[in-house]
Amino acid sequence: MCELLGMSANVPTDICFSFSGLRARGGRTGPHKDGWGMAMYRDGDVWAIHDPRPSADSDMAEVMSHTSLKCDIVISHIRQANVGAVCLLNTHPFSRLLWGKTWSYAHNGQLEAAEALVIDKTHPLGSTDSERAFCWIIEQLQRRFDNLEPEVESLSQALSELALQLKERGVFNMMLSDGKRLYCFCTTKLHWITRRAPFQKASLSDEDVIVDFQAVTTDKDVVTVIATQPLTQDESWQQMQEGELCVFDGGEVVCQIKHSSSVA
Amino acid sequence: MCELLGMSANVPTDICFSFSGLRARGGRTGPHKDGWGMAMYRDGDVWAIHDPRPSADSDMAEVMSHTSLKCDIVISHIRQANVGAVCLLNTHPFSRLLWGKTWSYAHNGQLEAAEALVIDKTHPLGSTDSERAFCWIIEQLQRRFDNLEPEVESLSQALSELALQLKERGVFNMMLSDGKRLYCFCTTKLHWITRRAPFQKASLSDEDVIVDFQAVTTDKDVVTVIATQPLTQDESWQQMQEGELCVFDGGEVVCQIKHSSSVA
Repeated sequence: MCELLGMSANVPTDICFSFSGLRARGGRTGPHKDGWGMAMYRDGDVWAIHDPRPSADSDMAEVMSHTSLKCDIVISHIRQANVGAVCLLNTHPFSRLLWGKTWSYAHNGQLEAAEALVIDKTHPLGSTDSERAFCWIIEQLQRRFDNLEPEVESLSQALSELALQLKERGVFNMMLSDGKRLYCFCTTKLHWITRRAPFQKASLSDEDVIVDFQAVTTDKDVVTVIATQPLTQDESWQQMQEGELCVFDGGEVVCQIKHSSSVA
Repeated sequence: MCELLGMSANVPTDICFSFSGLRARGGRTGPHKDGWGMAMYRDGDVWAIHDPRPSADSDMAEVMSHTSLKCDIVISHIRQANVGAVCLLNTHPFSRLLWGKTWSYAHNGQLEAAEALVIDKTHPLGSTDSERAFCWIIEQLQRRFDNLEPEVESLSQALSELALQLKERGVFNMMLSDGKRLYCFCTTKLHWITRRAPFQKASLSDEDVIVDFQAVTTDKDVVTVIATQPLTQDESWQQMQEGELCVFDGGEVVCQIKHSSSVA
């Protein structure tokens, strides 16, 4: 399996604090030692780092946990390989062009018989089930909406339906973004917290680090962090339900689709 | 056009000094403002950064110009877009798997009718002539050598032949690496310098930065830097010839193929 970390904020915000906690799980407090990656969006542009070395040992990850780069949206992933060798091209997040924008995606879980997902024009570079599922999603969206990007409600509905199909193959916790919104789908574990005024202190579960958000924010800031497992020990994280899709924009939930069969 | 920067060393070495010079050309001392990227190899592993923002302005590039990450081989590129939009997936270096290793590649120049290069299984993610040429090279090598990685001489000969074919379509200055060797092909401009004991001081042409290599090396270090244009103003760089392929391993030239018609 792997671990996911996402952020959506209404003001450019760095991910150092949360990434420090995630990073420790990449070989020190957790077994996810098969690489890490990060896609960082600001003003619609996205830049990315991919490193197949364990995040707990990587000097590049050390840099990223201490360097404040302000972003609107971040998707980060630390990998514990199941399908596909440990190498650059199997390192999440993966990116593809759709509707003139760069979409980035990371996946936690494992899908059975992912090779049976029919893809035609959107090809994986690596050999993971995760990237194949991403290519399939991109292609399904293209087929459904052609060259016209749908409104957030229609897109969310489509993503929910596609994710539920993938869920039938196994575990599919997923994050996807176009730089404006962060789409999160949960099958087994995704937790989120929205921080806003009045800001408090928080301490990481995996590292001996405390941050006083009051000191680094303004009253207008809204910052949501999403992770497979809560990253702090003194805050109350919301747990997403099985089959739930949550869409964040500027740190706020703008769309939420719950799958009825999961609340039986 | 674009600018290329490569490094091959016999001891892990950081690229900060050279990258500081290159970076300035990405929007400040040069027009190459359409993104930058870096593939960094150490012990056979490669990690990578891709950033479509101008390197002169990018906070991520600022970090990389001041952070010492030791590498055996580096390929870096700053882009001035001609074919393909400015976006993450059009940002060099590009990477593909071949013979169980991750090969990284960057290109300076422009190729006419690159879409006519026939590729079958190795697909570009973006829309540049550069990535298409890379996919074509990878596929040609696979056809020639199947699943058996050739010795350096055979591979160099093949790369030289393929590069000469691409050269017929325009300008093809290129760097390619598997983490062991750095293959450089020149059609119009590539310069290199090998630094070894006794080390001297050097000052960048594009930035007010001087480094005393004596202070940061041992007597055994051999470090070769290759760039489209010399990066320092007080050293003597060697100019590669039109149609020449140079292969570096541990900072030393291990293979050199000159194209006879270019020295007529």
